[in-house]
Amino acid sequence: MQLARVAGTLVATDKEPSLDGLSFRVLSQLDADNQETGSYVVAVDALGTGIGEVVMYASGSSARQTEMTEGRPCDAVIMAIVDTWEIGGEEKYRK
Amino acid sequence: MQLARVAGTLVATDKEPSLDGLSFRVLSQLDADNQETGSYVVAVDALGTGIGEVVMYASGSSARQTEMTEGRPCDAVIMAIVDTWEIGGEEKYRK
Amino acid sequence: MQLARVAGTLVATDKEPSLDGLSFRVLSQLDADNQETGSYVVAVDALGTGIGEVVMYASGSSARQTEMTEGRPCDAVIMAIVDTWEIGGEEKYRK
Amino acid sequence: MQLARVAGTLVATDKEPSLDGLSFRVLSQLDADNQETGSYVVAVDALGTGIGEVVMYASGSSARQTEMTEGRPCDAVIMAIVDTWEIGGEEKYRK
Amino acid sequence: MQLARVAGTLVATDKEPSLDGLSFRVLSQLDADNQETGSYVVAVDALGTGIGEVVMYASGSSARQTEMTEGRPCDAVIMAIVDTWEIGGEEKYRK
Repeated sequence: MQLARVAGTLVATDKEPSLDGLSFRVLSQLDADNQETGSYVVAVDALGTGIGEVVMYASGSSARQTEMTEGRPCDAVIMAIVDTWEIGGEEKYRK
Repeated sequence: MQLARVAGTLVATDKEPSLDGLSFRVLSQLDADNQETGSYVVAVDALGTGIGEVVMYASGSSARQTEMTEGRPCDAVIMAIVDTWEIGGEEKYRK
Repeated sequence: MQLARVAGTLVATDKEPSLDGLSFRVLSQLDADNQETGSYVVAVDALGTGIGEVVMYASGSSARQTEMTEGRPCDAVIMAIVDTWEIGGEEKYRK
Repeated sequence: MQLARVAGTLVATDKEPSLDGLSFRVLSQLDADNQETGSYVVAVDALGTGIGEVVMYASGSSARQTEMTEGRPCDAVIMAIVDTWEIGGEEKYRK
Repeated sequence: MQLARVAGTLVATDKEPSLDGLSFRVLSQLDADNQETGSYVVAVDALGTGIGEVVMYASGSSARQTEMTEGRPCDAVIMAIVDTWEIGGEEKYRK
């Protein structure tokens, strides 16, 4: 999984019918030091996140392993809101 | 999912029989600031898009989760036409 | 899908039994302007292509969605021979 | 599979229910010479690893082929703790 | 599929039980001119290869389409030992 900050929202009215009702978030990818890498991805929000929250997302077929995304043309899903992580004993992020 | 602008069309007569009747679009990938990255991908158009429209596409096995692409050798599908997105409260694109 | 030129052929006698009878092509990836990117991939040829032809190939699990490749350890398949594509009204390639 | 060093731990309380009880590790990717590449990934720990251990992880749908991760939105899993590897007869790492 | 030279071996005693009995090889990726790219991957050896041999490997879910790897957390498998390949009529490698 990759780490990201919820950077924004996206609206799409004309879409695959199976995607109706899903929320899309624009995610800004983070490195392990909690710095933005400059890469973005659009993910389905399976949890109800807010702008600025730090999350984990899963890509590929794993993004369809939630009740919300199963069988849908979705290749990225937010599957966790991060509380904290540490590297080598140093806390890099705390919610 | 990734953001892209529909840049052109592609015609292929001699192809896997299961692909008959599908439309192919050449997509120019966009970053979150609505700038073209220079990367291209060819995707099946599941929605009937026009040149210049901004879309989202799904890759990998997720590209086969539409009625049009199920069970076909297709690894990228346009699954939404984007109305708008914003980053940090700033609108980056509006249709 | 990605665009490529059929650059060469590959022979492998000692292989997974399920791959017997398949033809392998060395593909040189093309960008949307029909220029070689310098990247190569080996793909199963599901169509019977010739050296120099411009093709589309599918990657990942989508490469197994042909009668020839189903259930086989193959992650790239040529699924179309390209007739033409255009970007912004300009023809970039014609067979 | 890729090689990595277990660099840290991650805690996420608010997550997809199917992920309850799983442990997340922040992995620092290694090259074949046992040097860190600077890339990080978050993986589910299917083995009970400790900080500093050298492991192999699998990505994509293959990350769901363990009892712990089956059917869950997980795209990276630690599936082995490495004892040793060698390149061209030279030992690059020993536990 | 990608081309690679078998560069070394890897031993891992503590691993997912379903991986028992599999052999792991460290592969050094080759470009189409038979030059090493500097990238490495660890793959399951489904064929019994020796150090220095030139092989093809498949990635992702396709790596599980062999009797040896089916249903196992393996995302790269050696599926062919290469005899020869040529580009534009020029032989780039012969076993």
